[in-house]
Amino acid sequence: MSIENTSVNKSFGGWHKRYSHHSKVLNCQMQFAIYLPPQASNGEKVPVLYWLSGLTCTDENFMQKSGIQLLASELGIAIVAPDTSPRGKDVADADSYDLGQGAGFYLNATQEPWNKHYHMYDYVVEELPALIESTFPVTDKRSISGHSMGGHGALVVALRNAAAYQSVSAFSPICHPSITPWGKKAFAAYLGRDKALWRDYDASILLSDATDFVPALVDQGLADEFLKEQLKTEHLQSIAKLKDFPIQINYREGYDHSYYFISSFIESHLRFHAKYLKK
Amino acid sequence: MSIENTSVNKSFGGWHKRYSHHSKVLNCQMQFAIYLPPQASNGEKVPVLYWLSGLTCTDENFMQKSGIQLLASELGIAIVAPDTSPRGKDVADADSYDLGQGAGFYLNATQEPWNKHYHMYDYVVEELPALIESTFPVTDKRSISGHSMGGHGALVVALRNAAAYQSVSAFSPICHPSITPWGKKAFAAYLGRDKALWRDYDASILLSDATDFVPALVDQGLADEFLKEQLKTEHLQSIAKLKDFPIQINYREGYDHSYYFISSFIESHLRFHAKYLKK
Repeated sequence: MSIENTSVNKSFGGWHKRYSHHSKVLNCQMQFAIYLPPQASNGEKVPVLYWLSGLTCTDENFMQKSGIQLLASELGIAIVAPDTSPRGKDVADADSYDLGQGAGFYLNATQEPWNKHYHMYDYVVEELPALIESTFPVTDKRSISGHSMGGHGALVVALRNAAAYQSVSAFSPICHPSITPWGKKAFAAYLGRDKALWRDYDASILLSDATDFVPALVDQGLADEFLKEQLKTEHLQSIAKLKDFPIQINYREGYDHSYYFISSFIESHLRFHAKYLKK
Repeated sequence: MSIENTSVNKSFGGWHKRYSHHSKVLNCQMQFAIYLPPQASNGEKVPVLYWLSGLTCTDENFMQKSGIQLLASELGIAIVAPDTSPRGKDVADADSYDLGQGAGFYLNATQEPWNKHYHMYDYVVEELPALIESTFPVTDKRSISGHSMGGHGALVVALRNAAAYQSVSAFSPICHPSITPWGKKAFAAYLGRDKALWRDYDASILLSDATDFVPALVDQGLADEFLKEQLKTEHLQSIAKLKDFPIQINYREGYDHSYYFISSFIESHLRFHAKYLKK
């Protein structure tokens, strides 16, 4: 498995690095970014927080806008940000921001033409962590977080793989995609019309079926323009309460769906994950 | 003077806001961004740090990538980020990233076709602060900072208006533009071939002529790909030493020209300005 370093920037004493590699499960060339804190240059192995971005993003948005390096450097945690879909001119796409490239929804597509490349679930759960853990000075302790479509991805990945993650968090996650416009459009295209097959990628449904869950934190802005129609945070909250699962959900007055919201609370998310990653 | 709010994002308890207004000195519609810390919503007047960005930037880059809101919120300092040139389809432009729109160099152009709009010096020194101070809950205490072309702008503005600023700082500034490629190209186009007229916009020359200066801080990455050819930090340093002016210049091992460098040291710059802004 060849992997090529494409850029390096020193950041808070550590290193922000981008890599290009051929993904077997996605059947295309992919980019990802990793922030390696200073501790990783000093012979120490550090735990990893995986970050899944939202619609239209690449590996760059979170690394450039969240400000997470400040605290990742202090706490000694590596941050890995994959792209949000398979990429390339041979990869199926659509003329809309919420389907196709930039909108992989962290699932394994079963429908033509998407099933040739769109296997972001397997990429995030299997291929990418294996590559990270065999390439960089990291431990096998993982947590996962994300924003919007990536918040959905983080919750789904943690719910289906509770043994593999220490903790999960999300900003403004799509909590119940089976019944909301972004989710219905993407799931119909990628997974087909049989809604029984959508259940594996719906955090609210997975949570209601779950017997086990990892510590979870959700932040949701109350001025988020997508809250009412697309996110349905209250569904996740009701199920968590009913089942007595430990999900801390914070509603934040005045905050919207942007990175200005994420950067305002990223410190509290990383401190939350650190409690479990550094145990 | 009409001014229109075009977007609002809550950030670290304060507000990031963008505005559009007609600039009289630039003779076009302009955008700027302001971060108002929480103290400004509580009836307090806060001092202002002006930030001048580098080539190709708009008001957005610094606000999205620097992470300054974290500490501006804590310290109670407003941040104002103007655009880097006049803008619009009627505004002269060039087919290169280092001349025309996005490359105003914070000067008053005297040459056709640039002199119709390119008066960024007057905009930054006069029109914008007057607009800010008459519109927002701010004091008349100002400091100024910037990056690359904007570091050049900040140093020039502070050197020529020492009474109007409490302090100045710069990341990776173009320190001696009269003798380096970016500066020579821009100055020749905007100011003409007579190099005597370039002196007013060259920080190294202004510093060697100065009798007074404000407290100044410069950070420069040693892995900066532009350091040797474009920036000439060592010239500024020699003159400052010769004249015994209080400029603190920090060379940072391994850091490049990017926002990953700026965000790593922005806290130290804001703490530096706070010493003088909050006196």
